[in-house]
Amino acid sequence: MGEFELLAKLREKLPSEGPRLGLGSGDDAAITVPAGATATSVDALLDGVHFRREWSSLAQIGQKALAAALSDLAAMGAEPGEAYVVLGVPADLDEEGCLELLDGMAALAGGTGTTLAGGDITRAPVLTLAMTVVGHAPNADDFVTRSGARPGDALAVTGELGGAAAGLLLLGPESEAMSRLSSPGDHNLDIGGLVARQLEPRPRLEAGRALAAAGATAMIDLSDGLGGDAGHLAGASGVALKIDAAALPIEAGVAEVAAATDRDPLDLACSGGEDYELLVTLPEDCLEQAARAVEEAGSPLTRIGTVATGAGVEIKLPDGRLFQSTGFDQLDRCRPHR
Amino acid sequence: MGEFELLAKLREKLPSEGPRLGLGSGDDAAITVPAGATATSVDALLDGVHFRREWSSLAQIGQKALAAALSDLAAMGAEPGEAYVVLGVPADLDEEGCLELLDGMAALAGGTGTTLAGGDITRAPVLTLAMTVVGHAPNADDFVTRSGARPGDALAVTGELGGAAAGLLLLGPESEAMSRLSSPGDHNLDIGGLVARQLEPRPRLEAGRALAAAGATAMIDLSDGLGGDAGHLAGASGVALKIDAAALPIEAGVAEVAAATDRDPLDLACSGGEDYELLVTLPEDCLEQAARAVEEAGSPLTRIGTVATGAGVEIKLPDGRLFQSTGFDQLDRCRPHR
Repeated sequence: MGEFELLAKLREKLPSEGPRLGLGSGDDAAITVPAGATATSVDALLDGVHFRREWSSLAQIGQKALAAALSDLAAMGAEPGEAYVVLGVPADLDEEGCLELLDGMAALAGGTGTTLAGGDITRAPVLTLAMTVVGHAPNADDFVTRSGARPGDALAVTGELGGAAAGLLLLGPESEAMSRLSSPGDHNLDIGGLVARQLEPRPRLEAGRALAAAGATAMIDLSDGLGGDAGHLAGASGVALKIDAAALPIEAGVAEVAAATDRDPLDLACSGGEDYELLVTLPEDCLEQAARAVEEAGSPLTRIGTVATGAGVEIKLPDGRLFQSTGFDQLDRCRPHR
Repeated sequence: MGEFELLAKLREKLPSEGPRLGLGSGDDAAITVPAGATATSVDALLDGVHFRREWSSLAQIGQKALAAALSDLAAMGAEPGEAYVVLGVPADLDEEGCLELLDGMAALAGGTGTTLAGGDITRAPVLTLAMTVVGHAPNADDFVTRSGARPGDALAVTGELGGAAAGLLLLGPESEAMSRLSSPGDHNLDIGGLVARQLEPRPRLEAGRALAAAGATAMIDLSDGLGGDAGHLAGASGVALKIDAAALPIEAGVAEVAAATDRDPLDLACSGGEDYELLVTLPEDCLEQAARAVEEAGSPLTRIGTVATGAGVEIKLPDGRLFQSTGFDQLDRCRPHR
C-alpha cells in the first residue's frame, strides 16, 4: 500500500470538522478560525526512546503520544483544540497497525474534545510520532506560563506521583521488580494500575483549566519528573521552590515496587517522570478554592511546599536532611540498544 | 550534552517574539494571538527517505525542511506565520551540526517572515525533522483550497518544472547523468542551478498570495510531481484537467540531463516532484492579471491547460498522443538501503 492510500484510510478516521475547524485533513493545510489566543506545543515520541513496542499495544502508543502533547496544554490551562500527527512508519508496521494506533489516539481525542485535524505519513526506521497540539483561551494572559511564581505562593501538585516510574519497572520479561514481587497478591499491589500510569497516561486538562481559573501563577506538567520540572519552573520564575518530601502524594504501590528494586520511593516520585500531573503555584488564599475545583475535575490537589526568594529546588526530608536523587532515569529502561 | 542544554542552545537561535507571537520557545507551549483564520500544515523529512546527509549540507537540510512545509502554506495563499520544529538527532550528529541545521532553517524563516516559535528535540536513529507551519489570512475563505476548480477555468503553473528531479540525478558519486555529461561546459548546463532546485527549494509564498488575490479557484504545490498533484486537485474539485505537454515550462538543462540518463524530459517534469511550484486554476478572465501579479513576485506564470468536466488528468503530446509516465520515482534515489 502506498503513502496516499494509507493517508486516505487514516483520513477516514479523522473528523472533517470541529468547533473551530473549517477544513480538515486532505488539503495542503487545515483551516481553523481561532477565537482569541492559541497555545501550541510539539512533542515527539520514538520507539526505543519514549516507548517500547513490545511493552505497549499500538493503541496505547497512539494514546500516549497524544496524551503527552495534550499535557503541555493542560499545563497552560488551555482548552484543547486541534491535534496534528506525523506518523513515521517502520517496515514491520502494516496498515492495520497504523489504524490501531490512530484508533487509540482518536479515543483520547474524543474523550478530551480534541479534533484530529491533519497529519503526514512517511516511512521511518522506527515507529516515530510527532504531535502538534493547539489549545485555546479567550486572551493570551488567560494562559498560565512557567514564569509567574512569586515568593510566598503555595506550591501544589495534582494527583499522585511515582506511579509511571513504578509501572515502567514492572514492565518487560526481565523486570526485576516483577520477579521479586513473586506473589503480587500478598502486597495488595495494583500492578495493572501502575502499568497503566506508564502506558496510558491521562492529561490533566480539566484540572489545568480549573487551576488557571482559580488564580494559578505558574504551572508545568510533570513529564521529566518533579525534581527536574520544578527546576524549570523555578528557573523561569526566578524563584526558589521549597518542597516538603513528607507531603508528596506518592501513589499506592510505589513504595513496594521501590523496595523490590532497592530504590528510594522518593526517587520514583521525584526523578521518574511521565506522571503527567501538574505542578502549580498559587497565592495562599487561592489554594482552598483551587483544591475544590481540581477535585471536581476528578483529581486531588496536594500542597507540597512554598515559593521562596532565591533559586533552585530544595526537597527536605522529615529529619531535616535534603533529598538527593540517585539519578534514577527511567528512560534508560526504554533503550533496548544500550 | 543533554537534551536540555541543546534545547537551550537552540532556543538562542529562536526569536522570542513575532508579529503574533506572545510567548516563544521555553514554556510548555508557545502563545499566539491570530487575527482571523489560520492554515496549519505538518510535514516530515527523514534521512534516507527525503534527503541524504552525504548530498546536502546540514544548513540545506534545515532550509529544505522548512521550505517543503511553507510550500503548503504558499498553496493556500496564506501569509506565513509561525513554524515549530521537531528535531530527531542521530548519534553521529553533534551540537554544532544541530546548530548549523537550525541556522539554515532560520535563514529561510527570516527571508519569508516566518517566526520559529518552538520545538522539541529527541534522539533518533536517523536525522528526522517534523515541521509544523501556521499561516494566516483575515478570513477562512481567503485561503485557496484544492477543491474549487470549475470546468472552463484555465490551468497554470508558476516557475519551471523538472529542475529538482534533474538536480537529484546529478547528485552523488554514482551519478549516471554526471558521468555521461563528461564535459558539462559543452552543454551550457547550469549544474549548480539544477542541484540547487533539489537541495535548496524555495516556497512560492508571494506567488501564492498573489494568485489568491487574483481569483485563484484551486491551488496545490508540486511536491509529488505535476501528474500526481494535478490528480489530487482534479479529485478534490471533481473535475478533469487537460494539460498540453508542449506548453509545460521545462527548466533549462532538464532535457540534457534526461538525454544523458535515457529518460523523457516530460518524466522529470511530470513525475519527478519536489519542484515546489504552484499549480493553480483560475477563471479565464483572471489569468492575465494573475500572470502580472505572479511576475511581480519574481516568477513566471504559464498556462498549461484547461479545467473540464469529468475526472482525472490528461497530458497531451503535440502529436495528439497522451503522455504515459514511465514511473520515474526520484525518491528511489534517496533510499540508500535499497
